[in-house]
Amino acid sequence: MYIEKINGPDDVKKIEVSELPKLAEEMRHALLIRASKHGGHFGPNFGMVEATIALHYVFDSPKDKIVFDVSHQSYPHKMLTGRKDAYLYEEHYDDVSGYTNPHESAHDFFTVGHTSTSVSLACGLAKARDLNGEDGNVIAVIGDGSLSGGEALEGLDYAAELGGNLIIVVNDNDMSIAENHGGIYQNLKLLRETNGQAECNLFCAMGLDYIYVDHGNDVAELIQAFASVKDSKKAIVVHINTLKGKGYAPAEQHKEQWHFNGPFHIETGKPLYEMEEEDYSDVTCNYLMKKMKEDPAVVAITSGTPTVMGFTEDKRKEAGRQFVDVGIAEETAVALAAGIAANGGKPVYGVYSTFVQRTFDQIAQDVCINNSPATIVTFSGSVYGMNDVTHLGLQDIPMMANIPNLVYLAPTTKEEYLAMLDWSIEQKEHPIAIKLPGGDVISDGKEVTKDFSILNKYEMTRKGSKVAILGLGTFYGLGNDVADLMKEKAGIDATVINPYYITGLDEEMLEDLKKDHSVVITLEDGILDGGFGEKIARFYGDSTMKVLNFGLKKEFLDRYNVTEVLKDNHLTKEQIVEDTARILA
Amino acid sequence: MYIEKINGPDDVKKIEVSELPKLAEEMRHALLIRASKHGGHFGPNFGMVEATIALHYVFDSPKDKIVFDVSHQSYPHKMLTGRKDAYLYEEHYDDVSGYTNPHESAHDFFTVGHTSTSVSLACGLAKARDLNGEDGNVIAVIGDGSLSGGEALEGLDYAAELGGNLIIVVNDNDMSIAENHGGIYQNLKLLRETNGQAECNLFCAMGLDYIYVDHGNDVAELIQAFASVKDSKKAIVVHINTLKGKGYAPAEQHKEQWHFNGPFHIETGKPLYEMEEEDYSDVTCNYLMKKMKEDPAVVAITSGTPTVMGFTEDKRKEAGRQFVDVGIAEETAVALAAGIAANGGKPVYGVYSTFVQRTFDQIAQDVCINNSPATIVTFSGSVYGMNDVTHLGLQDIPMMANIPNLVYLAPTTKEEYLAMLDWSIEQKEHPIAIKLPGGDVISDGKEVTKDFSILNKYEMTRKGSKVAILGLGTFYGLGNDVADLMKEKAGIDATVINPYYITGLDEEMLEDLKKDHSVVITLEDGILDGGFGEKIARFYGDSTMKVLNFGLKKEFLDRYNVTEVLKDNHLTKEQIVEDTARILA
Repeated sequence: MYIEKINGPDDVKKIEVSELPKLAEEMRHALLIRASKHGGHFGPNFGMVEATIALHYVFDSPKDKIVFDVSHQSYPHKMLTGRKDAYLYEEHYDDVSGYTNPHESAHDFFTVGHTSTSVSLACGLAKARDLNGEDGNVIAVIGDGSLSGGEALEGLDYAAELGGNLIIVVNDNDMSIAENHGGIYQNLKLLRETNGQAECNLFCAMGLDYIYVDHGNDVAELIQAFASVKDSKKAIVVHINTLKGKGYAPAEQHKEQWHFNGPFHIETGKPLYEMEEEDYSDVTCNYLMKKMKEDPAVVAITSGTPTVMGFTEDKRKEAGRQFVDVGIAEETAVALAAGIAANGGKPVYGVYSTFVQRTFDQIAQDVCINNSPATIVTFSGSVYGMNDVTHLGLQDIPMMANIPNLVYLAPTTKEEYLAMLDWSIEQKEHPIAIKLPGGDVISDGKEVTKDFSILNKYEMTRKGSKVAILGLGTFYGLGNDVADLMKEKAGIDATVINPYYITGLDEEMLEDLKKDHSVVITLEDGILDGGFGEKIARFYGDSTMKVLNFGLKKEFLDRYNVTEVLKDNHLTKEQIVEDTARILA
Repeated sequence: MYIEKINGPDDVKKIEVSELPKLAEEMRHALLIRASKHGGHFGPNFGMVEATIALHYVFDSPKDKIVFDVSHQSYPHKMLTGRKDAYLYEEHYDDVSGYTNPHESAHDFFTVGHTSTSVSLACGLAKARDLNGEDGNVIAVIGDGSLSGGEALEGLDYAAELGGNLIIVVNDNDMSIAENHGGIYQNLKLLRETNGQAECNLFCAMGLDYIYVDHGNDVAELIQAFASVKDSKKAIVVHINTLKGKGYAPAEQHKEQWHFNGPFHIETGKPLYEMEEEDYSDVTCNYLMKKMKEDPAVVAITSGTPTVMGFTEDKRKEAGRQFVDVGIAEETAVALAAGIAANGGKPVYGVYSTFVQRTFDQIAQDVCINNSPATIVTFSGSVYGMNDVTHLGLQDIPMMANIPNLVYLAPTTKEEYLAMLDWSIEQKEHPIAIKLPGGDVISDGKEVTKDFSILNKYEMTRKGSKVAILGLGTFYGLGNDVADLMKEKAGIDATVINPYYITGLDEEMLEDLKKDHSVVITLEDGILDGGFGEKIARFYGDSTMKVLNFGLKKEFLDRYNVTEVLKDNHLTKEQIVEDTARILA
C-alpha cells in the first residue's frame, strides 16, 4: 500500500507517475470505508482525488499554498499532508475536522466552510508574498458550484490585476450541491464541449489566462497541466473536468443525494439509519406546495440548497417556475425576493442561518429600506444545528434583529410556524423573517388564531408572579420546564411568556410585569451579545426589575457537544433555577 | 424650452427625435445650474442625459419598469417623470432626494443607494410579472463601476436563466468613482474597441444576449438600439459607451473629482467653499503614507472609494503596489485583507460604515474565525455622517460588535485613533476594527500611552460618584458636557469613562462602580438595538444599578436634521441630565 507510507507531500513525489492511479485507488477505498461508517462530504472528495495527488506532486506545499474553496473537498489533501490516519483507522476518524484547519496542519491556511472565498483569500496570500518579496505559488481550488457566489466573481475580477503568480483550479463537475444554475454554467459546458477552445470564455473575459484539462481524473494529464502553469507570473485558470462521486456507482448516478452522506451500506448505498421524524424542511415544502397550487404568485427561492426547504428534485419539477434556485448567490436571492415582493409576487426565501450572514446588506437595503413584504425563513439557527465553527447558526438574532423595519419572528411549534408563514406571505406591510426553532419539531395540534399583524404582542401562557420567564423560540419549552422546577424547588409560580417577536418589545406587558414580578428571565437560542435578552435588559434598566439573560457566550464554538455547551452557558433548568434563587435571596 | 413642458414620459414622446438633442441641452443646462448651487452627483448624471431621454422615448414607464443602479444617475429620469421643478427652480431643489424614491413617483420602484443591486432587483420585478401573467419590459440601468460588485455579477448570472424579458443597460463610461479596476474592464475596453464585435465577451459568457451602442450620448442611436430590444423575450445587455460628466469641460477632464460636487463657480469649476479643516481621511492617509515607507508589508485597501482614506490620485501613485483598489467589491476587499494578514502582510481596509454592511460574512468567516490580524477602519459611522436613508452609518455597532473575536475600538480623538491604528497594524493576535468618531476631528495633542493589547480596559477620566457616564467614541465629549451640567444643576460629581472597546466589558471597573454609583449612563453614536449600551444593561441586570442607554432609535432616518434627531433621541446634555435626575429622585 502506498497510502500507508505517505506522511507528507514529499512522499507523494517519490512515487512513479504511472503508479499514482494505484494511490488514487487506495485513497478512494479508504474514503469509501470511512464514509460508510462516519459520514461526511462524499461527491466532492471522490471527484478530487487525482487532482489533489497531482497538486501535491507538482507543487511544494506548504511553501506553495493551496486554498480550498468551501474545503469540503479537502479530505484527499488531508490524507496526503500527514493526516492519513484519520481516514485509514476508525479510531482516528474524528481527529480531523471536515474542512481545512490551520490548527491541524501547516498545509492548511484558512478555516473555511462557506463557499466562494478561495480566490479572494488566495489573492491575499499572493499579495503578501509579493509585498514581502517572497516567491512560491498560490493556488485556489474552487468548485464550479462556488463560482456563482459574488465573492468568487469579485475575486476573479480582481485576480486579473493582482499582477503576480496565482493559479485558480476550477474543479468543474457540472454540479453544485444540486444541479448548477445560472448563465456561467452554459459557458463551462461550452468550454467542455470545445475542449476549452471556445472564444467566448468567462475567464478570459475577466482578464485571466486559461487552460483546459479534459480528463480531470487522469493524474498524468493533471500533472502535465499543473507543471505547465507552475511559477506562472500572472493569474491563470486551470479548468478541470472531473466526475463528482467518481469511483462509487451510486454517487456517480445520484450526485445530489451523495454530495453529503450519513453512514450507509457499501453494497447497496442505503443509509444505515433512516430519518423517520418530520422536520421543518418537510413541513415547509408541504405547506408551500399546497400554497403554490392555490396561488401562482407564490414562489420559493433557494440559493443552492433546495432541500433545506424540502424541495427534492421531484418537488422542484412539480413546482416548476414557482421554485427558483439562483445557485449559490445569497445576495441575489434576497434582492430577487425584494423585487418579486415589490411587484406583487409572494416570495419565500429559505436559507440556513449560517448562510443568511452572506446577505446583510441586501436584507437592510433591498428589503428593509423598501419595506418589501418578502419572507425569509432561517433554518438551523440553533445550538442544535450544525456544529462546525464555519456553520454555526448562533448569530442570526444579532445580525438580523437589529435592522429597522424587519419583523423577525420566533415560532415555538409547527403550528405557530405555519400560521406565521401564512400571514407573512399574504401581508403587504412588512419584511418578515421567521427563525425556525432547533431540536425536534414540536407539534401540539393547537389552532393558532393570533393576529400577527398586531406587532410585538407577546403571549402570557402561564400567569404567575415574582418571576417571569420569556422563552424565545427553541427555548420556550425550557422556559416551561424552568417554571415547573421553580414551583417544585421554591414554591414560586413563575409567569411564562412566549414572545413570538424577536424584533420588538411588548412594552405594555413588560410594564405590567413590574406590578408583581421582581425578576425577568430571558432565554434565547443564540449568542447573547446584540440579542433579544439585552433589549429586555435595556427596557428595565431604569427600574428595580432584575433581569437575567440566558443564551450563549459570544465565541466561536467548534464541533461541540450540545449538552456541554448548554451547561457551560447555564442553560439547564437546574442552573437557571439556581441562578434565579441567588438573586431572589 | 422643451423641458418646461415635460410632465411625464408621454411629453417626451411628443418631441421629434431630431429635436431631442435640444431637450438634452436644456436638461444639462438646468443640471449645471443646480449642481453649481446645490451640489450632488455630477458626472453620472451628465453622462446619462441622452440615454434617459431615449429610455423614456422608447419604453412606457411606469408599466415598463426602469431600475437604476445606485440611482445617483437618476436626476435626468426625475426631470422627465414629473419632477422637473426640482431641477429648474431653486426653491424646489430640495423637493427630491438624490436617489430613486418610490415615495416621490410611480416611476421609481426602489429606494436605492448602494451599488450593484439593479440586475437582481430587476430580475425580481420581471419574475413577479411572469408569475402573474403580466407583460411589459423591465430595464436595469447599471454603470460599469457597479459591475464589479458581487451582487451585480450574481445577478447577471441568474438573469441568463430568468427566462423572460429583461433589458440590462450597461452604462460604460470607463470610470467607477475613481478609475475602474479589475479584469472586467479590460473586456469592456476590448468591446468598445471592436465596436462590440469581440468574440470574448463577458456578457455572452454569462449566457446573455448582447448589443453595443458606440455613441452612447447620441439620442437617435440610443433610440434605435432600445427599440430593437423592446419586448425581447430573454435577458439582453445593451452596452452603451458614454462620457462621464459630458457637457462640462472640467468634469469631462477630471472625472474622479466631478463624480460628486459641492457648490462651485460655473466659469472656473472652483468650489465655493473650501474645506479647510483636517478630516480623518487626511489623517489616515498621512499616517499610512509614512508607515508604508517604513514597512513594505503595510498595504492600504479600498473598494472603489480611495479618497475616504485620503488617497487621491497622486497619493495612490506614490503608494504604488502598497495601495490596492479592488473596485466596488467589498467582500473581496475584506477577504483580501484576511489573506494578506494570514501571510505576514499588514493590511488596512478603509470603508464607509454604510458599505461595511456589504461584507458581514467575510468579516465573520474570512477574518474572525481565522483570527486574521487585519485592520478595518470604518468612516462616517455617525449621526454626523451621510444622511440619506441608503447611506446611514448608524448600524455598524450592532452589525460588527457582536461577531466573536473581533476587537472593535472607538477612539475619541485623533491621537487615540493613530495610537490604535499603529497598535493594530503591528499586532498579530486579533482582527481589529476602528470606528472613527463623527463630527469635527478632535485633537488634544496628548500622547497616548495606553497598551491596547490588554483588551477591554476602559479608562476612568473623571472620578466621581453616584452617576457614571460611559461616553463611547463620538459621544465622549457629550459625556463630559453632561457631567459638567450635572455638577452645575444637581451638584453631582459624575464619573466619566472612555470605554475605547465596543466589543467587550471592563468587568472589573463596572463591578467597582457598584460601590459608590447608583446610575450608569451609556452614550453611543448609532442605533441602540444590539449596541454597546445594551451590553452594559445586561451586565447590571442582576444588580440594583440603574442603567440608562442613550443612542438612536432603531429606524431608517432620511435626510434628517442632526439637531432634531439628537433631540428626538434625548441626546442633548440637558435631556440626559433631566432623565437622570428623574431616576435619581
